[in-house]
Amino acid sequence: MTLGPLHGFRDFYPAELAERAHIMRAWREVARRFAFVEYDGPPLESLELYTRKSGDEIVGQLYNFVDKGGREVALRPEMTPTVARMVGARANALRKPVRWFSMPQLFRYERAQKGRLREHFQLNVDIFGEPDVTADAELVAVAIEIMRALGLTSADVQVRASDRRILTGWLAALGVPESAYPAAYAVIDKLGREPRDVAEEKLLKGGVPQAAVEPILGAAEQSLDAVAARVAGTEAAAHVDAYRRFAEGVAALTGDGAQWLRFDLSIVRGLAYYTGIVFELFDAQGELRAICGGGRYDGLLKGLGGPDMPALGFGMGDVVLGELLRQKGLLPTEAPGPDFWVTGNAAGGIPLAMQAARELRAAGFAVEYALRAQKPDKQFKAAQSAGARYVLQLHEEFADNRVVTVREAHRPSGGPSLLAHLPGADIALDQVIAAATTHRASTF
Amino acid sequence: MTLGPLHGFRDFYPAELAERAHIMRAWREVARRFAFVEYDGPPLESLELYTRKSGDEIVGQLYNFVDKGGREVALRPEMTPTVARMVGARANALRKPVRWFSMPQLFRYERAQKGRLREHFQLNVDIFGEPDVTADAELVAVAIEIMRALGLTSADVQVRASDRRILTGWLAALGVPESAYPAAYAVIDKLGREPRDVAEEKLLKGGVPQAAVEPILGAAEQSLDAVAARVAGTEAAAHVDAYRRFAEGVAALTGDGAQWLRFDLSIVRGLAYYTGIVFELFDAQGELRAICGGGRYDGLLKGLGGPDMPALGFGMGDVVLGELLRQKGLLPTEAPGPDFWVTGNAAGGIPLAMQAARELRAAGFAVEYALRAQKPDKQFKAAQSAGARYVLQLHEEFADNRVVTVREAHRPSGGPSLLAHLPGADIALDQVIAAATTHRASTF
Repeated sequence: MTLGPLHGFRDFYPAELAERAHIMRAWREVARRFAFVEYDGPPLESLELYTRKSGDEIVGQLYNFVDKGGREVALRPEMTPTVARMVGARANALRKPVRWFSMPQLFRYERAQKGRLREHFQLNVDIFGEPDVTADAELVAVAIEIMRALGLTSADVQVRASDRRILTGWLAALGVPESAYPAAYAVIDKLGREPRDVAEEKLLKGGVPQAAVEPILGAAEQSLDAVAARVAGTEAAAHVDAYRRFAEGVAALTGDGAQWLRFDLSIVRGLAYYTGIVFELFDAQGELRAICGGGRYDGLLKGLGGPDMPALGFGMGDVVLGELLRQKGLLPTEAPGPDFWVTGNAAGGIPLAMQAARELRAAGFAVEYALRAQKPDKQFKAAQSAGARYVLQLHEEFADNRVVTVREAHRPSGGPSLLAHLPGADIALDQVIAAATTHRASTF
Repeated sequence: MTLGPLHGFRDFYPAELAERAHIMRAWREVARRFAFVEYDGPPLESLELYTRKSGDEIVGQLYNFVDKGGREVALRPEMTPTVARMVGARANALRKPVRWFSMPQLFRYERAQKGRLREHFQLNVDIFGEPDVTADAELVAVAIEIMRALGLTSADVQVRASDRRILTGWLAALGVPESAYPAAYAVIDKLGREPRDVAEEKLLKGGVPQAAVEPILGAAEQSLDAVAARVAGTEAAAHVDAYRRFAEGVAALTGDGAQWLRFDLSIVRGLAYYTGIVFELFDAQGELRAICGGGRYDGLLKGLGGPDMPALGFGMGDVVLGELLRQKGLLPTEAPGPDFWVTGNAAGGIPLAMQAARELRAAGFAVEYALRAQKPDKQFKAAQSAGARYVLQLHEEFADNRVVTVREAHRPSGGPSLLAHLPGADIALDQVIAAATTHRASTF
């Protein structure tokens, strides 16, 4: 028997699924509050959808193949081409702005390495049809509110944002010729990840004047005010103003966005298609890869042969975020157990336990019972091992008087017990259901 | 621009995603109440996992290919081999019975035909480690309670169940020799779907005695009592007793299971591995394919080289179920709209709308506002087109007195309006939030 999954793929046993579900619940819940609606596309698309956006070089990283009908296809490596295709196909009919989110599983054929995954789940949040930076602020606010919903604070996570057009204006103001921008971008994108002398040499070789080298190597420390002063009177000044409006928007939408958000001229983002504000979320310790990245890509739909429509979005994967949450103790450590375990009596046996289970389940509770006759103490242990919260033992006379004994099997949270809301431990099932329904939020 | 998905794959625009989400919520919620825990596996597995269970013939129907590392792999066509692999790998560590569910997307390379899909989503519910028919009853009760949660009744859906061992005993009692069982199974599996004379000829050719032909052609109409009488005194009599206990269990677990469940000797199930009770759910009109099918497959894990462990499960796809629900008007017809649309005032503009949106979102409501300055009447129309429930217009003095005007934008359900719980339409935002929180369930 093959015991494991394919290399780079994950089995989600209940404990791991509980982690993933915890993250996905926060994604979906925050996206809903921000009035984004969910969509999905196929996990398999035509290869051309990806090469048209990223060129033929991308194929080396894709899970692509020729299907039985002779079509060149690929497991989706990212969601943007799919959403661009879907929005493009109904561009006229869709209400603008389009506010959509999705949580696809994505695939890449990475070279086999320890810990390198070939799939992950990624929240994608996008807005189409709105050029104003208010839309950019909404997006970043969604990312921040997800962190907050998961228990993270601005002491744990920082949002770093910039605008490629501000960077360009700043480079121009430093006297960097246009021909040297690619070299400057490449070095800025790797700041802190390659030795200083290597970076310096690349800049000079690329045509960056000596006087601009020092400022470029310190790009990450440039304040917005310093950059504003440098580009005053140039075209980029308008982008600085827009960035300020964006930052104010993030603050208004989150209440404390100023604590989360930091202007960082060194945020370039690898992908060539960003046209405005770009941002990334990092753990404050700087130990992990980016948690989230995105920005504005107004030219993409048109570039793919679709309508000319402003667009912006971000992707947030489950892997890095999961690592951070695990480090902070903010992930569930096991799958949820039943709310109640029902133990039958000798008189009625399993059919009576089934009937009690039915009533509790109909009231919305998760209920398990022993599927064959077992002694009560063995069942109590089974209830504990199932992670049940309470055990209900049916009295011998249950069929006549509906009385059960309520016990705690498991005390996971330290919250108040249902027992505190009952007049006694021996009580009619109906009263247990009524009390459990009323105190559901606090006693489970 | 490629506008469509690959042939046989679905784009889920928000309206279609809302349908899928509605079905999946019911799947997950009922599985949770029955104390099943969720797991997931990779959508891509080694091809061998499927050929070992189903033989090499299965390859013709699979989405299989050779990956860049030279591995023979396939997009999962069903979940059972994956769950058998996962349970097999931790057979000793897992608490028994294992009660697991999953909602994977599955793939088949079907010949291209109108309306034929190459993917669907399927709820899989399985129990491992329990030989008693109580477990079979739990499974069928889950399927019935899902129907109920989706608004279907026993007038819409019927569960037909049988036991292959009862069928075998009945055939033996009719004098059918063992060598003729395959012919009998094949005909019974197609009852009502091929002409009577064709079926009769197949039976006789296959070695079924003339006297058994008429009963076999009427297998679907055999009552359990008639079958019990026929097999009395044989080994199969014990399986009839077990079936009765199973049916009583379904009744106890659902309250009205007797109305949903019908003994039907003609339920054979195509898959060769079933070893006990088998069942299928059908629409009562008999117009659609099966909604759900499953049963006991005690030999499977061992057959795949894993531990000897009793097992049973069912699969329920989203496509046939979705068709039935759509026919009955039981699916949402559009994606959910925001709870509130906030319209700013001239004095504060968008930043003030953002602040109000933040407060409403923090209370858990879905909120949208215009991302750039627009006249209030244009915004009201935008709110309606977004499907918003209420519009909050900030007063000019909102920054000082927090007063808003509450209006209905959209009255979807005919339920009571939030306005009925407010002392007037012009009211402080805080009172709106308090009333909306208290009456959340009824007013949205």
